[in-house]
Amino acid sequence: MSTFGKLFRVTTYGESHCASVGAIIDGCPPGMELAPSDIQPQLSRRRPGQSNLTTPRDEKDLVQLQSGIEQGVTLGTPIGLLVRNEDQRPKDYSETDLYPRPSHADLTYLLKYDVKASSGGGRASARETIGRVAAGAIAEKYLRQAYGVEIVAFVTSVGKIHLTTSSATTASSEAENDDAEDPLSPEFVKLLSTITRQQVDSFTTRCPDSETSEKMTKRIIRAKEAMDSIGGTVTCVIRNSPVGLGEPVFDKFEAMLAHAMLSIPATKGFEIGSGFKGTEMPGSRHNDPYVARPNGTLGTSTNWSGGIQGGITNGENIYFRVGFKSPATISQPQGTAQYDGSSGTLAARGRHDPCVVPRAVPIVEAMAALVLMDQILIQLARKSASRLLPSLSHLPPSMVMPSKAVLKKFSEHPEAEEVAM
Amino acid sequence: MSTFGKLFRVTTYGESHCASVGAIIDGCPPGMELAPSDIQPQLSRRRPGQSNLTTPRDEKDLVQLQSGIEQGVTLGTPIGLLVRNEDQRPKDYSETDLYPRPSHADLTYLLKYDVKASSGGGRASARETIGRVAAGAIAEKYLRQAYGVEIVAFVTSVGKIHLTTSSATTASSEAENDDAEDPLSPEFVKLLSTITRQQVDSFTTRCPDSETSEKMTKRIIRAKEAMDSIGGTVTCVIRNSPVGLGEPVFDKFEAMLAHAMLSIPATKGFEIGSGFKGTEMPGSRHNDPYVARPNGTLGTSTNWSGGIQGGITNGENIYFRVGFKSPATISQPQGTAQYDGSSGTLAARGRHDPCVVPRAVPIVEAMAALVLMDQILIQLARKSASRLLPSLSHLPPSMVMPSKAVLKKFSEHPEAEEVAM
Amino acid sequence: MSTFGKLFRVTTYGESHCASVGAIIDGCPPGMELAPSDIQPQLSRRRPGQSNLTTPRDEKDLVQLQSGIEQGVTLGTPIGLLVRNEDQRPKDYSETDLYPRPSHADLTYLLKYDVKASSGGGRASARETIGRVAAGAIAEKYLRQAYGVEIVAFVTSVGKIHLTTSSATTASSEAENDDAEDPLSPEFVKLLSTITRQQVDSFTTRCPDSETSEKMTKRIIRAKEAMDSIGGTVTCVIRNSPVGLGEPVFDKFEAMLAHAMLSIPATKGFEIGSGFKGTEMPGSRHNDPYVARPNGTLGTSTNWSGGIQGGITNGENIYFRVGFKSPATISQPQGTAQYDGSSGTLAARGRHDPCVVPRAVPIVEAMAALVLMDQILIQLARKSASRLLPSLSHLPPSMVMPSKAVLKKFSEHPEAEEVAM
Amino acid sequence: MSTFGKLFRVTTYGESHCASVGAIIDGCPPGMELAPSDIQPQLSRRRPGQSNLTTPRDEKDLVQLQSGIEQGVTLGTPIGLLVRNEDQRPKDYSETDLYPRPSHADLTYLLKYDVKASSGGGRASARETIGRVAAGAIAEKYLRQAYGVEIVAFVTSVGKIHLTTSSATTASSEAENDDAEDPLSPEFVKLLSTITRQQVDSFTTRCPDSETSEKMTKRIIRAKEAMDSIGGTVTCVIRNSPVGLGEPVFDKFEAMLAHAMLSIPATKGFEIGSGFKGTEMPGSRHNDPYVARPNGTLGTSTNWSGGIQGGITNGENIYFRVGFKSPATISQPQGTAQYDGSSGTLAARGRHDPCVVPRAVPIVEAMAALVLMDQILIQLARKSASRLLPSLSHLPPSMVMPSKAVLKKFSEHPEAEEVAM
Repeated sequence: MSTFGKLFRVTTYGESHCASVGAIIDGCPPGMELAPSDIQPQLSRRRPGQSNLTTPRDEKDLVQLQSGIEQGVTLGTPIGLLVRNEDQRPKDYSETDLYPRPSHADLTYLLKYDVKASSGGGRASARETIGRVAAGAIAEKYLRQAYGVEIVAFVTSVGKIHLTTSSATTASSEAENDDAEDPLSPEFVKLLSTITRQQVDSFTTRCPDSETSEKMTKRIIRAKEAMDSIGGTVTCVIRNSPVGLGEPVFDKFEAMLAHAMLSIPATKGFEIGSGFKGTEMPGSRHNDPYVARPNGTLGTSTNWSGGIQGGITNGENIYFRVGFKSPATISQPQGTAQYDGSSGTLAARGRHDPCVVPRAVPIVEAMAALVLMDQILIQLARKSASRLLPSLSHLPPSMVMPSKAVLKKFSEHPEAEEVAM
Repeated sequence: MSTFGKLFRVTTYGESHCASVGAIIDGCPPGMELAPSDIQPQLSRRRPGQSNLTTPRDEKDLVQLQSGIEQGVTLGTPIGLLVRNEDQRPKDYSETDLYPRPSHADLTYLLKYDVKASSGGGRASARETIGRVAAGAIAEKYLRQAYGVEIVAFVTSVGKIHLTTSSATTASSEAENDDAEDPLSPEFVKLLSTITRQQVDSFTTRCPDSETSEKMTKRIIRAKEAMDSIGGTVTCVIRNSPVGLGEPVFDKFEAMLAHAMLSIPATKGFEIGSGFKGTEMPGSRHNDPYVARPNGTLGTSTNWSGGIQGGITNGENIYFRVGFKSPATISQPQGTAQYDGSSGTLAARGRHDPCVVPRAVPIVEAMAALVLMDQILIQLARKSASRLLPSLSHLPPSMVMPSKAVLKKFSEHPEAEEVAM
Repeated sequence: MSTFGKLFRVTTYGESHCASVGAIIDGCPPGMELAPSDIQPQLSRRRPGQSNLTTPRDEKDLVQLQSGIEQGVTLGTPIGLLVRNEDQRPKDYSETDLYPRPSHADLTYLLKYDVKASSGGGRASARETIGRVAAGAIAEKYLRQAYGVEIVAFVTSVGKIHLTTSSATTASSEAENDDAEDPLSPEFVKLLSTITRQQVDSFTTRCPDSETSEKMTKRIIRAKEAMDSIGGTVTCVIRNSPVGLGEPVFDKFEAMLAHAMLSIPATKGFEIGSGFKGTEMPGSRHNDPYVARPNGTLGTSTNWSGGIQGGITNGENIYFRVGFKSPATISQPQGTAQYDGSSGTLAARGRHDPCVVPRAVPIVEAMAALVLMDQILIQLARKSASRLLPSLSHLPPSMVMPSKAVLKKFSEHPEAEEVAM
Repeated sequence: MSTFGKLFRVTTYGESHCASVGAIIDGCPPGMELAPSDIQPQLSRRRPGQSNLTTPRDEKDLVQLQSGIEQGVTLGTPIGLLVRNEDQRPKDYSETDLYPRPSHADLTYLLKYDVKASSGGGRASARETIGRVAAGAIAEKYLRQAYGVEIVAFVTSVGKIHLTTSSATTASSEAENDDAEDPLSPEFVKLLSTITRQQVDSFTTRCPDSETSEKMTKRIIRAKEAMDSIGGTVTCVIRNSPVGLGEPVFDKFEAMLAHAMLSIPATKGFEIGSGFKGTEMPGSRHNDPYVARPNGTLGTSTNWSGGIQGGITNGENIYFRVGFKSPATISQPQGTAQYDGSSGTLAARGRHDPCVVPRAVPIVEAMAALVLMDQILIQLARKSASRLLPSLSHLPPSMVMPSKAVLKKFSEHPEAEEVAM
């Protein structure tokens, strides 16, 4: 179904060629200042037509808030919002009346619904992500204000061009020695702690390294000129996440992230922390030793866990990588079959991106924000409820002593007012 | 929360050291023959103590069915089941009263719940997966009977030892040429279509290749002797899946798979189809051209999509890879901090596996079955409802013609009886 | 949260004084003809300003469909829709800056959200029901076409004026004899089987009896002239419901109906079938004996069960009654306290209905349609899945014989095509 | 499905004649002392065989806790629990191989599942309520400790014998005057504020009035002697509920209560506050005027709202009434049809209650506790999240001034510690 989240819920509607795309965001905390200017920047970052690397489909994508806000403040009621579809050119796709586009959703939508939308793939359109990005921006507004959360995504590869030191993947080696390099270089680990959206946006490719970005640009232009397309990866870091988030067993924090990321069109893979490369490390090197932080809480000296242990956040940076395939729609002629089974050649004429990863950056950030926001609300319910119970003084020290000590320290930041009802 | 699924729902309970672990499976179709012998084999495959490669914690893990079945037939009501925890040795973990085990869930559970279970990590125990495996076995029974579905998982890497040709990951190369090798070799693609559980189980490592399996065995034994641990990957294929499964937008089929797989303890990554390596291929090579199958339906000549396009299954093999980190619990002394922040050295004494991937195989299969089963029920609701509507004869051919032609063919297999209420 | 339903899901947004009110309807079966003209009639029946019995707030309430439909046919994707709020007069409510209106939601919304909407009661507005009515109309379109379902609600009381023979409530008598009258008269039982919306709408009060309707009209006008208000009841019947609907244990059909009805603003009670009066009947009289219907299936000779037994529909008429209190907003001065606790007198000046039951009729119908639609989809999933299993021939006759016989008969109507995927 | 609740979730399993009935309670706040002795009393109150008014089926119904608790303290993980079915006598029901029992669930279960359980009605058994009662007892433990909540239900009618002044129903009068008596007498309103379970249990009928109870006893015995059965009503009050609970629009507090109550077997109706009789009162009399309470918060001088306004709790007593039909299973011969349609006479021989309302009392209390608990957790999430936002100082006084004043007062009780994560 078209809803994501349990307490912070986003429901979206809209195809590529209908009147509007939109969303209802339910569960936004009341009393938060919110204006279109909180949402528009991320929508604009997502918008096509920003450079010669993306599709020329130019739309303003101006968000229209419908409800849930008065005098610039959230009421706690559902926020309805929509963005008009101004630039509809359904005729571009007419050739797809005969052909299901290879690796696009034309055939599978037909198999699923038995009805063929003019756009072929129905909601399998980048345009569908508008509602998510708007919802994510609302969540982020809260996360920043309440917890100082920072979510930054950036491009780490385009085709075979990788941001040096970023790769968390591994060579398919048969070497039996344990002396694998670390999955990430120290420079990359540092980058995760410092990178900002401003830095990311100073590069057209959204890969924050001049040399790599230049190579990526050439690669994308080459794909464009060949009427072809190319894939890539996006890495995302969440800083200042509260601890204790993630619901064992099925809704572990990384499971929710994986769900969210693989729900973005064109995604092929997800890695948390050390990822696939980390599977090659022995436990003695992969384990993250605990160290006392200056503020008295426990941190870890390495962070191959990616900020999550046992499905629950531990306060370290949460980072993950998402793989995006090359766009299925290419102008290059492709040998394929028609709906009726006869062979032929299809050359798509619609507008399309040669590479989606630069535009995918705000979408990844949005989905990360939605996961974090929802998990925070669920954990706040538990924590608040638990604090209202009488304290347990008679238990064996092994059961509560550590918690008392540790939690006192952890609970110092951020300050929360009393929660009474 | 501890529930997975919408119409086929599994809810589990149980820690490592309580009276029993169990589950309630809700939504099983009525009228299906079901006996403990349908469930026990997968539980036994998951069970520790099967070889010198796994933990010596020996438990019978005999499932006790409580409800939902009479005279060997499902009633359609919830199936309660449980497995006793017979071999409880909580004292083994006493050292963890002082130390949170690095990269285990001890600290994060404490941060989340403020109460410390004797086992430290609470439900972050391989034992928690019993309920899932039992539920998955019930789902599989249905899937086999109704659709002839086959789900087979196997080990594709242990540490740096990879099943030749299996790797879907990529070298971190900066080469700019497009001539990447295919993500998978033809032999591996063929293996996906033929591999059986019997073949997989003929190897202790569950890697179906003699030479590779031998190397893996040595690698695991080396880890064990070094009081260390090692990770690996599991690849899983679903054959004969119905078409049209997966719910756009948020619950795409691969998103549900990713959610399910990353909810398994110790997982670090998920790839569908061509995976991360596929992100390096240009669209012209990554796209799967359509071809007419002998039965008149459309198939694809390659399958880099992994059987899913636009989040919806297309009838080709669904295959994916899951990364598992090296187990966090190792006997080797580790420098780390105590709960109170003071430095020290921890040497865990509990029983543990040096490598979890062989035992992870049935767990991956179970979670795959749960996703498939749930999505089938949701799609059956839609399809059944849609078929009861009057046919649409006056629409433009572009909107329904392809569907009529294509779907007639697709609907021929499998035969379904009338659905009337 | 603002979502109702599991497979046919409605999510609404909108306050009384924001840009628009709207809804996303997710899960509508694809391939159904749908136009605004299918929705507008129920919205118009709900609309204020239809007679001198209702509020003069005149709005066109024209529905704008945004998505999920092409060329007049549903795609199976979410249907976004909205209705503009054209007639906003927030100043009317300015006096409520000081006073929480008695028995309105002003204070409770403030207690819940800590932020005060200009309308006071936020979404506790009759205007919020627009999204439900639109969604219900879409569900009804399906229900009529697929099953010939008829849902008709009508007014059975206004204040103390009751439609003769309609009352399902009971006198607070202490009489100990068992010879209670039947809860409903034969005439009323017959009315349930024949009443149409056209008949209902031929009366301004929507009470389908000339004499009673006239009395009700006078009663409402008297309330209006006294700047007061009055409550009433609505009875609703669902005819031609499929059998087997309702999910034991928690989501029994009547439980979902009760949930749906009590979610309508101003409702105070719900009765299914014989209702409260039925609680006074001994089992020997309340039980509905089975009889063979002409078509060979089993029906019941009486229907005190209201078409539901054990939480599951049995094919007889489903009927229930809903109580609505007198509207809280009255122009008459009321002694009450201000937010700061000081005593005073409040005379509301906003537009309001003296009696809501005539306008509540389409809302009750809509919520009934939403419950029925959702339960049908859930049951279709089960039934379709079950039919794909091999038949059970070796079971004891007591377990399946009756079902084979009975179900063959029951499944004859309506005819469903094959469901294959 | 068999799950109730969103954050405090109960999933149950079990038929009348299987190995055990049980439940998984997910979302219990961690750190709460919990022992079987917290649960057993309510199970025992629900148990049959307590007096000559109930069924002789004698079972110990001893709860066995499986998980989620260590050293008498909840861990925050799912609590598995079960009660063995010790007294299984499936043969008693053998006659139902031929006959669907009138107004029981035999036929509808068969229509729904196509498989016939030996017990006929599958989960439509009073025994299914064991899991609910156990879950409710756990919720109540929390509610008492955290908020001092008191939930007390009692019998208000058996057949036509009503507790004087309790009736909230109305005579089907056509009188047009407004001078209706109040729906409840002052004595009954007072009873709602003072009644205890101890007082209730001092009467076999659980009707807390000697004279009425005696009449009820005679009425039940008369039904028993006539091999017949009789229905009745249960009224329940929730005292000390937190304010602000209930989720507009669809999950209003009374809607969740109605859902919960109508999910109890044999229920026919639900009324909140003034109920159906309240629909006859004009607004000027039905509205509850606000008054300043001694502690500075606002209360209401009457409480026809039943503690809920706009779907949200206001701090006054929440009270409601639930109607239960006479049990369908009677020993008296009944003319009815067999599965095959042939007419005949059925005389059930199974054990059964002549009247369920005394035993329904703890079930009603349990379901009320489940609703309250779940709504508290949801509201705690919102409230906690909102408090972490920066304060809004620049807004127009009309928007926040009242809230600041009012809420400061409301938040004084109960004291909650800081909620930080």
